[in-house]
Amino acid sequence: VLTSNLADPGLDVLEAAARIRSARMADAGAVLAHLEQLCKPPGSLGMLEQLALRLALIYGDPPRPLQNRLVVVLAADHGVAAQGVSAYPQEVTRQMCATCAAGKAAINVIASVCGAEVLLVDVGVIGDEIREVLTRRVRAGSRNLAVEPALTRDEVVHAIRIGMDIVRERAGSVDVFALGEMGIGNTTAAAALTAVFTGAPAEAVTGTGTGISSATLKLKQEVIRQAVARVGLTADPLHVLAHVGGIEIAALVGVVLGAAVAGRAVVTDGFIATAASLTAVRIAPTARDYLFASHRSTEPGHCVQLEALGLEPLMSLGLRLGEGTGAALALPIIDSAGALLREMATFEDAGVSGKLI
Amino acid sequence: VLTSNLADPGLDVLEAAARIRSARMADAGAVLAHLEQLCKPPGSLGMLEQLALRLALIYGDPPRPLQNRLVVVLAADHGVAAQGVSAYPQEVTRQMCATCAAGKAAINVIASVCGAEVLLVDVGVIGDEIREVLTRRVRAGSRNLAVEPALTRDEVVHAIRIGMDIVRERAGSVDVFALGEMGIGNTTAAAALTAVFTGAPAEAVTGTGTGISSATLKLKQEVIRQAVARVGLTADPLHVLAHVGGIEIAALVGVVLGAAVAGRAVVTDGFIATAASLTAVRIAPTARDYLFASHRSTEPGHCVQLEALGLEPLMSLGLRLGEGTGAALALPIIDSAGALLREMATFEDAGVSGKLI
Repeated sequence: VLTSNLADPGLDVLEAAARIRSARMADAGAVLAHLEQLCKPPGSLGMLEQLALRLALIYGDPPRPLQNRLVVVLAADHGVAAQGVSAYPQEVTRQMCATCAAGKAAINVIASVCGAEVLLVDVGVIGDEIREVLTRRVRAGSRNLAVEPALTRDEVVHAIRIGMDIVRERAGSVDVFALGEMGIGNTTAAAALTAVFTGAPAEAVTGTGTGISSATLKLKQEVIRQAVARVGLTADPLHVLAHVGGIEIAALVGVVLGAAVAGRAVVTDGFIATAASLTAVRIAPTARDYLFASHRSTEPGHCVQLEALGLEPLMSLGLRLGEGTGAALALPIIDSAGALLREMATFEDAGVSGKLI
Repeated sequence: VLTSNLADPGLDVLEAAARIRSARMADAGAVLAHLEQLCKPPGSLGMLEQLALRLALIYGDPPRPLQNRLVVVLAADHGVAAQGVSAYPQEVTRQMCATCAAGKAAINVIASVCGAEVLLVDVGVIGDEIREVLTRRVRAGSRNLAVEPALTRDEVVHAIRIGMDIVRERAGSVDVFALGEMGIGNTTAAAALTAVFTGAPAEAVTGTGTGISSATLKLKQEVIRQAVARVGLTADPLHVLAHVGGIEIAALVGVVLGAAVAGRAVVTDGFIATAASLTAVRIAPTARDYLFASHRSTEPGHCVQLEALGLEPLMSLGLRLGEGTGAALALPIIDSAGALLREMATFEDAGVSGKLI
């Protein structure tokens, strides 16, 4: 039972996370044998074969078509923007939400070509409610993590629950989820989370985000270094999220956990989405079974995250936009991998000389 | 006027190739300015922005939707298979064609997920005609390039014309073409072509193909080294194709040239398709404007080809199957890039603070 009013806020989330099962809807050995029987040289489909195996473990062999694809784009503001760590003013978060609601942001365009729906949720943008955007605000932006914890533990748990609820409400009609975000200042939070969870130094995980000067980059690194130091030594991912996270990042953690609970594949995007994915896997290691990498972004910390997660990206397109753009592009590739197990002939079906000379 | 009965067989092909125009349906500076105005940090869509520019040069700005996508899979046998250079017996070419005709080869499955039609054409498979496959045979397999030229100049030109004709017949209803092939033994021909056109040594461009032992790899390298030596010094790509090419490779050259003539983007696949693409660009350098790389295969010579063409692949999936599988996977990505110019808001549309702080 979920128990949301205990002494420790977050216990219900942690309990739900603890119940996430490893993906074992198929026997890995049997799936590998199936892949070997498919009418092609062994291993010749490379990473598609690994994707097919992972999808079979999640959905059974053969995996279902990933026909209903949902990109969950979570938006919130960041108090740390006041430090001047971004190339854009904070009101851009709100303007980008309006553009996305009008169907004219990059993620709308790419999702449309890649057969995915976009669900934009405002979990903490500053200002009046934005028209035609689902509003589930935790608070009006996070606090400035350069001077105080960005969120309280209650706020973190609230945001995670929003993400989990979105997935639970949609999992019946959605085959695969993809992560997206909007939030000026959020590469700073993502870098701090990555530094804490991987032990990498601030310089190794701090990039130029939307495009800042080298002087601003130095400032950003210093902000991150100090924030990480204030987190202290802890094994509690919720504590880390509260200190240096963000509202949309915490909600994305909930989307990953929710997808794992529901037994759905979830595709991570760039640096911010993958900071959330890493946090989710620190909360619930078995959630990794449901996570798929999409692309390798130009943010230096993205490689650090992907390595920590043991995930290999499918594309290297030099993207650094976020919004779920890379995740959406990966959906047809991942779906193709599962389709191989569903539709390809075996050597026996095809009467092909499968034996090597 | 095409003049197909001249003293030099191939003069008509060379004349058509010479008339291929650079892709200039838009002004590059204007397209770059348009990309800068889109509602995103400058350059944040990385390679998608380069793809968008190239599509605009081919189709105009904004580029048309790449809705009708055709993977042209060309199949033929190779006499060099008699040398034991492949892991599979020659009859597998025929069996794979039947599997593809039945819609159950990897390319059928992937193309279906990626919204592409597959057109399989038998341009030189050995044995009786294969049911439900378009038959345009030049001859029953190429000759053994280990001991004699694989094709005559007439046969090469015939195969190129077949490829060009396929594209001309379909270009009215097809927005983008993708290259695919089937042919046991064809990595040997592709490696020899690559060695001749790039000057790379045989060892650098010879891989394990469908999966051969290290002893067979040595034999394959020796076959390629000797065949390349017999080609001699020449500036005539048709001569090279005749000596060490293959029927389906020559026909793919025709598909590339035909796409360029028709002003359509054409997406190359792995090692064999890219050997054909490289040959096409040696015949008609302007054809490169219409060529797009898709993935980076595990065949070592594929990198050499892509570098010679100056094309950057979008994915690194460890594929080594051919059939057009990587090219088909790239189609939604390339289409997404063009859609950005068509559908994304500009900073002005969106009322977004486009000025950096």
